[in-house]
Amino acid sequence: MIRLMMIGDVFGRPGRRAIKDNVPALIRDENLDLVLANGENAAGGNGITREIAMEIFAAGVDVITMGNHVWNKKEIINFIDRESRIIRPYNYPPGTPGVGYGFFKTRNNETVGVINLSGRVFMPGLDCPFRCADQVVPVLREQTPVILMDFHAEATSEKAAMAHYMDGRVSAVCGTHTHVQTADERILPGGTAFITDVGMTGPYDSVIGVKKEPVLERFLTQLPQKFEPAAGLYQFNAVIIDVRRETGRAAAIRRIQNYE
Amino acid sequence: MIRLMMIGDVFGRPGRRAIKDNVPALIRDENLDLVLANGENAAGGNGITREIAMEIFAAGVDVITMGNHVWNKKEIINFIDRESRIIRPYNYPPGTPGVGYGFFKTRNNETVGVINLSGRVFMPGLDCPFRCADQVVPVLREQTPVILMDFHAEATSEKAAMAHYMDGRVSAVCGTHTHVQTADERILPGGTAFITDVGMTGPYDSVIGVKKEPVLERFLTQLPQKFEPAAGLYQFNAVIIDVRRETGRAAAIRRIQNYE
Amino acid sequence: MIRLMMIGDVFGRPGRRAIKDNVPALIRDENLDLVLANGENAAGGNGITREIAMEIFAAGVDVITMGNHVWNKKEIINFIDRESRIIRPYNYPPGTPGVGYGFFKTRNNETVGVINLSGRVFMPGLDCPFRCADQVVPVLREQTPVILMDFHAEATSEKAAMAHYMDGRVSAVCGTHTHVQTADERILPGGTAFITDVGMTGPYDSVIGVKKEPVLERFLTQLPQKFEPAAGLYQFNAVIIDVRRETGRAAAIRRIQNYE
Amino acid sequence: MIRLMMIGDVFGRPGRRAIKDNVPALIRDENLDLVLANGENAAGGNGITREIAMEIFAAGVDVITMGNHVWNKKEIINFIDRESRIIRPYNYPPGTPGVGYGFFKTRNNETVGVINLSGRVFMPGLDCPFRCADQVVPVLREQTPVILMDFHAEATSEKAAMAHYMDGRVSAVCGTHTHVQTADERILPGGTAFITDVGMTGPYDSVIGVKKEPVLERFLTQLPQKFEPAAGLYQFNAVIIDVRRETGRAAAIRRIQNYE
Ligand SMILES: [Fe+2]
Ligand SMILES: [Fe+2]
Ligand SMILES: [Fe+2]
Ligand SMILES: [Fe+2]
Ligand SMILES: [Fe+2]
Ligand SMILES: [Fe+2]
Ligand SMILES: [Fe+2]
Ligand SMILES: [Fe+2]
Repeated sequence: MIRLMMIGDVFGRPGRRAIKDNVPALIRDENLDLVLANGENAAGGNGITREIAMEIFAAGVDVITMGNHVWNKKEIINFIDRESRIIRPYNYPPGTPGVGYGFFKTRNNETVGVINLSGRVFMPGLDCPFRCADQVVPVLREQTPVILMDFHAEATSEKAAMAHYMDGRVSAVCGTHTHVQTADERILPGGTAFITDVGMTGPYDSVIGVKKEPVLERFLTQLPQKFEPAAGLYQFNAVIIDVRRETGRAAAIRRIQNYE
Repeated sequence: MIRLMMIGDVFGRPGRRAIKDNVPALIRDENLDLVLANGENAAGGNGITREIAMEIFAAGVDVITMGNHVWNKKEIINFIDRESRIIRPYNYPPGTPGVGYGFFKTRNNETVGVINLSGRVFMPGLDCPFRCADQVVPVLREQTPVILMDFHAEATSEKAAMAHYMDGRVSAVCGTHTHVQTADERILPGGTAFITDVGMTGPYDSVIGVKKEPVLERFLTQLPQKFEPAAGLYQFNAVIIDVRRETGRAAAIRRIQNYE
Repeated sequence: MIRLMMIGDVFGRPGRRAIKDNVPALIRDENLDLVLANGENAAGGNGITREIAMEIFAAGVDVITMGNHVWNKKEIINFIDRESRIIRPYNYPPGTPGVGYGFFKTRNNETVGVINLSGRVFMPGLDCPFRCADQVVPVLREQTPVILMDFHAEATSEKAAMAHYMDGRVSAVCGTHTHVQTADERILPGGTAFITDVGMTGPYDSVIGVKKEPVLERFLTQLPQKFEPAAGLYQFNAVIIDVRRETGRAAAIRRIQNYE
Repeated sequence: MIRLMMIGDVFGRPGRRAIKDNVPALIRDENLDLVLANGENAAGGNGITREIAMEIFAAGVDVITMGNHVWNKKEIINFIDRESRIIRPYNYPPGTPGVGYGFFKTRNNETVGVINLSGRVFMPGLDCPFRCADQVVPVLREQTPVILMDFHAEATSEKAAMAHYMDGRVSAVCGTHTHVQTADERILPGGTAFITDVGMTGPYDSVIGVKKEPVLERFLTQLPQKFEPAAGLYQFNAVIIDVRRETGRAAAIRRIQNYE
């Protein structure tokens, strides 16, 4: 069995503190073979920098996936092509910096395929994630049946549709983006593990990571506000997925919620 | 303590079967004082009819709340004003049929205030739900401190903002609409129970209630499809909330997921 | 010089009456070489049927383009593949019934290329119209430099961006979809004629074609309404574009607004 | 007769140059009684500053209306309450800085009422503009029957609906926001002048004011770009409306397009 952990959107400094506090222990205690984290909010809630990516990798994360905030810190455009451990949604236009999938080695030197895609419902116009999946998954399966997809999307319908579409073709479809962990983790009939959203790793007492007061002020007054990560204790949100190495079928998916 | 149960969007015939199978037993076994259900998808996934509402009430539900699908079955316009047990989002324009809040008696004859609101992010334009809450909550509190809000909304940020805004002013903010139960139920510092989404009570093997194949076909081809409730086994999604009758503070919130 | 006329969205029966009243006379009086019309609203404001398409062709229209309402009358799926004079937005998924571009003969047997694309801003998710244009335009230019694009889109920014992107590569970019003719027709520096929106050919005393009262009722009450084409006199909206046959450069673009 | 001129969204420095070049001459040559301009893009395409507002007033503009970009330059929050010649959309939440309507004196000391509203379709959630109009118009009519509304909105349907709703109650409904002048100016049956969009006063060779290259790059790559006003020659877009002072009925509406 190969054991993967996918960590929900890492948000700001509290999210990185959560990574450092929890990932090494979980790797050891849970015998994790590969650790992935969505890093689109790692730098102050907006994008990621090279330094912050290194901080996350140093804590034991093997792969960072991204989402709609991928370009918020513009420096990523300069380093993403030299950092094969960061992948961004595959369905950006051809020619976009970075790549949308990759092969990664577990601690036992086994190969895991990872693909990152973005949804389109209530989100910017990108290539069709379903047809993109049709293109990439066979490429990944040539190397390994153990495949994890981070599907970064807003609408629950689009996420569920993708999971069912992928059932039997990838080991796991992990939704990200809403910053709230869902309680619907399960193994679909074809052997694909699915959760609508892995959740958020960052400030606990917040509005999906952001300091509450300016968000409320924004909703009430419609005036522009400075949004920043909330201070205080963190939450750590992830899922652990066990995958049969021969078939790529998921045997188990389990939610993790740790608190500071 | 007053024990409330809020049931996530009841979807089609399988959802109603789930209500009939589960509600009477839960009332008895859990000593429920008042049972609420979001009924916007009760009739074939789209709206509600008088007959179907009666079916749900007969199973033990005391209050039906609604959402963006409230008018999908047009006959509701004719009976909603005579059926005080159905409430629709308060922030529809003044003059809209039906009401947006009400007072309901528990099995021990205690009064519970209920308010239904709709979000505006990624949803049709309605009056500001935050300011509407400011108007209605004091009216409810004149009669009782025990108040439940069904906040029917898409965006996790808007739901979390509402919960924090209401903290200490209502007993519970229960999100609905996404049809996926979230794993973030908690009691906020001011005593308000909160869950981003209660989930969906309806077809289990589905895309948020709908038969999978046409949904996938729609995402892949963009051609119009006939959407209908999926067949097969159901899931029953709800939360049970214990509220202190003197203060209206929530003492506990617990998720329910029953399967056929 | 080749003279093309592009007619804005034909809306319901009044729109078809406008076609019959105006097209034959304009062909004769203006010496039109090819007549195109957007037909997405031809059948009662929603989609098109085979019979209605024949009615429009019989009045002298050579090519019907479509838009987001293309599938509203489902029977089009059955006949669009056998009717080469109807084209739908090219950027629908591969495998979609119908085609997105075509070659058409003028009354003097010269070839005109036509492409139909849909925007993505405030519209459903489709393939990138800019990259699709990059694919199709060279195919068209192999046969002829005289090319007209119907860009069916909501946002003025997306339409202007497309026009500038196509400048020098097609003879004309005619926006459709908003049902209101814009007053910005011009020839861009590279020789491409452009208008943000050609307008609507249909009921004059209406809300973009639709009977006013239900639209107002909808905005005021948010209750569902039955939308139908307004009755009464029509407006006929079009542009006439003169294109140099050797180079495909537009020499002139002129707006037409005829009333009943 | 009272002659009003409403100028479309003033965009950046080229827009202000257009104001200075055109407004004084038009006041003189056209005998304008009151001049209004939408100023939401006056400062570099984004919002307005006090200094820039003074520059516009100095050129002869009497009233500046705003739109969704009203707060982009945050300093407006500090001066809008002391500058009665600037009005922002009325349907912002109560308590918002500034006001949404006002009374202004013509050069002959006659009173004109002005109201600014924002649409909600494809725009942020605000109070219902239709019901807001119902509130404000009677207040204005107590002082004067000569009333101009700037309805800042995206969707042509919402704008047309508002115009028909206001027909006979205000002298003119001038749409703004899309930055493209429409060719549908007319007097509705009740005496209200209407144009879907007045257009944009700013850089001519641009994508609705913005430099073309970054906009195209954005559509093609989805990468963030720095948007700035295009350089070069300007366009000046406005409408001139003649209103009968006794009845407030519009007698004429005429489009103005001047070029540098
Ligand atoms: Fe995120
Ligand atoms: Fe995201
Ligand atoms: Fe629902
Ligand atoms: Fe809903
Ligand atoms: Fe149309
Ligand atoms: Fe359309
Ligand atoms: Fe503007
Ligand atoms: Fe605007």
